[in-house]
Amino acid sequence: MSIAKTALIGEGVTIREGVIIEDNVIIGDGSYIDYGVVIRENVTLGKNSFVGAQSILGEFLFDFHSDNTNKNHPLIIGDNALLRSGTVIYGDCVIGDNFSCGHKVTIRECTNIGNNVSVGTLGDIQGRCELGNYTRLHSNVFIGEHSKIGNFVWIFPHVVFTNDPTPPSETLKGIVVDDFACICARSLVMPGVHIGKDALIGACANVTRDIEAEMVAIGNPARVVKNVREVKDENGQTHYPWRYYFDRGMPWQGIGYENWIKKDM
Amino acid sequence: MSIAKTALIGEGVTIREGVIIEDNVIIGDGSYIDYGVVIRENVTLGKNSFVGAQSILGEFLFDFHSDNTNKNHPLIIGDNALLRSGTVIYGDCVIGDNFSCGHKVTIRECTNIGNNVSVGTLGDIQGRCELGNYTRLHSNVFIGEHSKIGNFVWIFPHVVFTNDPTPPSETLKGIVVDDFACICARSLVMPGVHIGKDALIGACANVTRDIEAEMVAIGNPARVVKNVREVKDENGQTHYPWRYYFDRGMPWQGIGYENWIKKDM
Amino acid sequence: MSIAKTALIGEGVTIREGVIIEDNVIIGDGSYIDYGVVIRENVTLGKNSFVGAQSILGEFLFDFHSDNTNKNHPLIIGDNALLRSGTVIYGDCVIGDNFSCGHKVTIRECTNIGNNVSVGTLGDIQGRCELGNYTRLHSNVFIGEHSKIGNFVWIFPHVVFTNDPTPPSETLKGIVVDDFACICARSLVMPGVHIGKDALIGACANVTRDIEAEMVAIGNPARVVKNVREVKDENGQTHYPWRYYFDRGMPWQGIGYENWIKKDM
Repeated sequence: MSIAKTALIGEGVTIREGVIIEDNVIIGDGSYIDYGVVIRENVTLGKNSFVGAQSILGEFLFDFHSDNTNKNHPLIIGDNALLRSGTVIYGDCVIGDNFSCGHKVTIRECTNIGNNVSVGTLGDIQGRCELGNYTRLHSNVFIGEHSKIGNFVWIFPHVVFTNDPTPPSETLKGIVVDDFACICARSLVMPGVHIGKDALIGACANVTRDIEAEMVAIGNPARVVKNVREVKDENGQTHYPWRYYFDRGMPWQGIGYENWIKKDM
Repeated sequence: MSIAKTALIGEGVTIREGVIIEDNVIIGDGSYIDYGVVIRENVTLGKNSFVGAQSILGEFLFDFHSDNTNKNHPLIIGDNALLRSGTVIYGDCVIGDNFSCGHKVTIRECTNIGNNVSVGTLGDIQGRCELGNYTRLHSNVFIGEHSKIGNFVWIFPHVVFTNDPTPPSETLKGIVVDDFACICARSLVMPGVHIGKDALIGACANVTRDIEAEMVAIGNPARVVKNVREVKDENGQTHYPWRYYFDRGMPWQGIGYENWIKKDM
Repeated sequence: MSIAKTALIGEGVTIREGVIIEDNVIIGDGSYIDYGVVIRENVTLGKNSFVGAQSILGEFLFDFHSDNTNKNHPLIIGDNALLRSGTVIYGDCVIGDNFSCGHKVTIRECTNIGNNVSVGTLGDIQGRCELGNYTRLHSNVFIGEHSKIGNFVWIFPHVVFTNDPTPPSETLKGIVVDDFACICARSLVMPGVHIGKDALIGACANVTRDIEAEMVAIGNPARVVKNVREVKDENGQTHYPWRYYFDRGMPWQGIGYENWIKKDM
């Protein structure tokens, strides 16, 4: 264990064996730092957070390698973070409150993440991305650089977001996903595509063009087949836009989306 | 290195630097615990096992995070386990003898695994799953919660098992795979699908419906194209049901499936 | 920290806490070995290299497990390597100069890699493979055993190279990729396929047959749709063969491919 003298460790923080905490680190009250975690310089971690074993926070950017010195690339993580073991988060990121992630996640530099977001095991966010509030990425999602993902977006296992229309090239075009969209397992989204609000992308789709709000797209290449309101669940009930039919973990839990949005306005 | 006084370490066990062994751990004779391994409370590991560097056994379930204390979630692993580096296995799992896995595997809670099973590098078993005996998962397979996989099943790289028919929802429907089925690389199986005995799912398939025993299914969406007995190898020879044509590592190695099954009956 | 007496550590090498360096290791001048790295026996690492936290070099081959002793399987890595955290590289590999890799990469035994190669985060190279010079693998690429990949090849995220035509079997057939080919995200290549020079495989393709030089193939199963010279970028300009239109990081950077190849001849 090695804790820099300049580190500010809050009250009631637990630090297990083998942890490294470098200069100018701030750890909020009540947090738990598990075995073998490395927290590099200039990391701020909120209260009541958990950092799983062998995670690395404030990972080096490329400029470290010019002279083996860490430049000033702060990482800020909000309160109540739950980072499972093996997570790597780079410097120059800002992550809101109540963030959680699975094991072996990698989040690269210059990524801004809102509140109440989760990223599944093996998630790979390549940097220079934006994720809104309450957005959920399941296991092994790959998000290419320059992606902009809204609020309340669901992205299921093994989805890939690309960014180069003519690889290899210098012309990267990020993907834009609007609020409440849902992208099912193993889909791939082509560079520069815009996925509209409440849209539903089926499993194994290859999304080569913009998808308008509330549309369902499936296949390779993906084509629009219906409105999400026409999708029925196994009991023949409407299930989309999902925000009217699902509330676990959402701010409208127990009161319904319509009541919540009214209250909020 | 830190070994709890209540841990029972068998004879001839090797423990390398940086290992953490917590309370109520039992390690069988002749096992090898490599650098930086974390074995949390209530883990039982069989004889002659190998735990690769930086693996974590008995990983915390979600209830740890209510008050930062590990509840009673035992993990039991049989004899002759070969867990390569970076493996994470949660509490409340039972794994049989001769289990082996690649690097950076994650196996979540309430998963029961038979004997002679292997899981490839980056495998991600989401929990509440059943795997029979002699089942083999290759690299980077994702198994959603509530999957039931039989005996002698092969699952090849980057296969995904989903479980939510109308995501996001509260209605999870696991997948059932019968004995001797073979699911080729990059296929995805939709929620609730049942794959029959000896069935063969081609590479890159999207399996949206049940597949009957001995059927070959390919494409997106997958459709049945023939019986497995019609598939020929490059020499024009029949190769399926594979149990009659392949024996490496199988209990019928050297004697043939037919003789083995007779002997067994 | 534990450094074997027989290890030869060059001048100006930085070794952080928790590092293990075993017998017969050679580390070149100016290298940086980050927290918790394990360098097993018989590893040679070139000058000015960086080994990210918790990486494992010289990982055990299967024969370790017969008697828990490491046999003689040297690993040789050239100068200026940049191995990000969590990388695992087995013994019996030879890797050239200027190699770089992302996080949590796994490279198994008997793999030979040229100079100026990169492998992205979560890359999984299964062993007994050849990679030429200046070849680039993006995130989460799976390369099955016995693959032969040429020079200046690009392989994008989540590409899978298989090797067993009738799984499970004993007949492994590796894939061959010629120089300058480009394989886009999420494609899968079937066993024994040969991809020609300058060929372009579209995203989400399932390549079941050989693809001739300069051909573009898309779809599942992939079919040839045009010559790469017919592909236009968003400005209506020709972009392939890419070596005439892209130079970042290439030996012809700033002078153009044609001038470089003339100079070289």
